[in-house]
Amino acid sequence: MTKKPDIVTAAILLIGNELLSGRTKDANLNYIARQLVVMGIHLREVRVIADEEGDIVSAVNDLRVRYNYVFTTGGIGPTHDDITSKSIAKAMGRPYVLSKKAKSILQEYYDGLDRELNSARLQMAHIPEGAKLIRNSISQAPGFRIENVIVMAGIPAVMRAMFEDVAGVLKCGTKTHSRSMSVMLGEGDIATPLSDLQQRYACVEIGSYPFNKDRRFGTTLVLRGIQVEQVNSAYEELWDIIMGLGVLPEEETASSDGT
Amino acid sequence: MTKKPDIVTAAILLIGNELLSGRTKDANLNYIARQLVVMGIHLREVRVIADEEGDIVSAVNDLRVRYNYVFTTGGIGPTHDDITSKSIAKAMGRPYVLSKKAKSILQEYYDGLDRELNSARLQMAHIPEGAKLIRNSISQAPGFRIENVIVMAGIPAVMRAMFEDVAGVLKCGTKTHSRSMSVMLGEGDIATPLSDLQQRYACVEIGSYPFNKDRRFGTTLVLRGIQVEQVNSAYEELWDIIMGLGVLPEEETASSDGT
Repeated sequence: MTKKPDIVTAAILLIGNELLSGRTKDANLNYIARQLVVMGIHLREVRVIADEEGDIVSAVNDLRVRYNYVFTTGGIGPTHDDITSKSIAKAMGRPYVLSKKAKSILQEYYDGLDRELNSARLQMAHIPEGAKLIRNSISQAPGFRIENVIVMAGIPAVMRAMFEDVAGVLKCGTKTHSRSMSVMLGEGDIATPLSDLQQRYACVEIGSYPFNKDRRFGTTLVLRGIQVEQVNSAYEELWDIIMGLGVLPEEETASSDGT
Repeated sequence: MTKKPDIVTAAILLIGNELLSGRTKDANLNYIARQLVVMGIHLREVRVIADEEGDIVSAVNDLRVRYNYVFTTGGIGPTHDDITSKSIAKAMGRPYVLSKKAKSILQEYYDGLDRELNSARLQMAHIPEGAKLIRNSISQAPGFRIENVIVMAGIPAVMRAMFEDVAGVLKCGTKTHSRSMSVMLGEGDIATPLSDLQQRYACVEIGSYPFNKDRRFGTTLVLRGIQVEQVNSAYEELWDIIMGLGVLPEEETASSDGT
């Protein structure tokens, strides 16, 4: 008997005016997406919003009821525009309080740098009541998780350190298996047999991504699914279809991490 | 008398499973964000969603009533997973119809390549009834706009060609002026005077972005607003604040395009 797949879902909320103004290119979405795939967590939606309390509250409340996890990045520093933590406390109806543990982490860090833990920096020790700290091995000011919301920094190196710390407590789901091949055919040349194949494999997601190589059209075909036998069987059929069109497909990847 | 600013807003909807699985790094958000800023169009929100009809319909309907423009990318090719156009027709309650003009563009293109305009490729000539075509100078299959929704390809080069074509018909808004400086101070060292300055300039958005250079902490301070006098005045005050802390700020940029 096949074990019932355990579907764990997530959304990412990237918070920052600098992403919307184009000043900064986001470098966090792709990293988190790849990490989640490896853990069998299905990323369903991403939003990018401004550092505005109303926008943060409504997005967090929209997403946290729909998905198993919501990961946020950005807006947890010491300046006036860092309003993520306070807004999330508000979204969840929790008091925004000083964490003694976070304060002592910051005290030690700034003592070591011979800098003052002033009131601005102390803002980074405030979290929604009941939140658990996430360790920041880079610059110490912690992230936190509260219920199913995981709050991380926007600076990519710091976000990654926080993700590594929190990853261990996340519930993993059934992993997606993926196989892909590249063929030197235009998408329009294979669309019909591909669509027929998709009809026969409801549990395999078949994606088609065109590319250009040496001024010729090619297409990368990606098959993804949680049932490895289904993915493999669809892959064999696809291979035969492509060979039948007189083209030799090139195997790209076979992985159980779904990328 | 000051002219009343004309605020034009937008959202971007990036559509594609490959963005959520981490297989593909999005390259469209930052390009569109920068173009919009130059046109005085305020990007307020971005969403990344899967190639799922229900997700597309609900996101388009959510966003198109809130913002002046919604730009979508992805899912307008010839394969079974290209369901954006049909889903947008559904969202807007319009029939999904063959555009004769789009068909003739494709016919000429595929005739020139000596390839067949088969039924899969003909899918790319279907649009919501009443939509206006957007020219694709790269691979001809057009995008379209319908009401305030602008539908473009996901391949960056094609998306850019489409954006250039459609840009001329968009309503521009009042541009944002921006000035920025870099200072070799940690965010926590300037957070308090920065917050005071923000209090005095409600119409200037003051952003603070930390960086590391030669193992020293620095912060880029960005002032943005539609009233150039306000931005300049806040900038002069900020310059004095930083000098008062014994540090020489470095002027980064002064632009009227808001980036």
